[in-house]
Amino acid sequence: MEKTNKDGWKLDRSEPGPGLKIFRSRLDYMRNPRNGKTEAMIVLEGADAANIVAVTPDGHIVFVRQYRFGIGADTLELPGGAVDAGEPQADAAMRELAEETGYTAPEWRLLGGIYSNPVFMSSYIFHWLALNAEPTLPQRLDDGEAVEVVLLHEADVWNKLIAGEFQHPHTVNALLRYFADGGRFRADG
Amino acid sequence: MEKTNKDGWKLDRSEPGPGLKIFRSRLDYMRNPRNGKTEAMIVLEGADAANIVAVTPDGHIVFVRQYRFGIGADTLELPGGAVDAGEPQADAAMRELAEETGYTAPEWRLLGGIYSNPVFMSSYIFHWLALNAEPTLPQRLDDGEAVEVVLLHEADVWNKLIAGEFQHPHTVNALLRYFADGGRFRADG
Repeated sequence: MEKTNKDGWKLDRSEPGPGLKIFRSRLDYMRNPRNGKTEAMIVLEGADAANIVAVTPDGHIVFVRQYRFGIGADTLELPGGAVDAGEPQADAAMRELAEETGYTAPEWRLLGGIYSNPVFMSSYIFHWLALNAEPTLPQRLDDGEAVEVVLLHEADVWNKLIAGEFQHPHTVNALLRYFADGGRFRADG
Repeated sequence: MEKTNKDGWKLDRSEPGPGLKIFRSRLDYMRNPRNGKTEAMIVLEGADAANIVAVTPDGHIVFVRQYRFGIGADTLELPGGAVDAGEPQADAAMRELAEETGYTAPEWRLLGGIYSNPVFMSSYIFHWLALNAEPTLPQRLDDGEAVEVVLLHEADVWNKLIAGEFQHPHTVNALLRYFADGGRFRADG
């Protein structure tokens, strides 16, 4: 198989790398169109994911505070998680919101999405909007999760967003899509 | 060594995982304060990185278009790259801008930063502002790079940002910091 693209990179060969629990790693030996040299590029293959901007009837957004193992500290993030194999991704968004927070919502809409990290990951993150979200269920957490639900008023979320306080890039992008969707920004092209 | 945190997660033990070219992997066996169960968490240790909002005297921002191996497609991103071992991170920003684009700038300032992905990565991305950037040097690319320089007027960048066109989360966050820094958003708390 030969994979090409408009810049002319060519895949010489691909081989599986070591497994990493939530990722399969792969080495793609890519021939550079600029100099003809082939170099091994690491790619982590993982599931796509969803995160959710869930808004309550009184204008609060549902966040989760949890310990993140990559940085060894707590973060305040939007709820979300990986799409299971074969699962429609809208179902994944509803399931992750319910499991992590106990909130459900009658009205769902896709806000957009972004690559998790195009440099070395294949995953895509879908951003969902859930309107009129209410706590209707108990949390159902995995063995490796401990999640505190935090409600923030939309005005506080806006202020934290523009102050740079959210430290998870996918949360930042979903909130940007949420406020853009709400007409908070105007194009001035 | 015992690492603790306010949620009470405890590190039972840590072991090195397989190497991945640009990452060292590690497994942290973490005891969950909620249920006392220990689970192995994958952490990728990599260098911190810098990306740069470089603005020309006539209001253009310097972007790079390049093939990204994770997604098998081109992206339009801010220039940037990893901080070398022992390198001051301001130097890394200047070096990466010069190497990838040939642009240099007389005026530099930190705009903020974000974790690369707090879930499983330790790296932090610093966002730098470079003012009065001009093309003064030839590109100097690594063997594994082929990079096209693209200038976009700031107004176009704003429109693309709010339209959700940038598909690299660290580029989105740096641009958000740039426009917030420029007073484009007002707090309404």
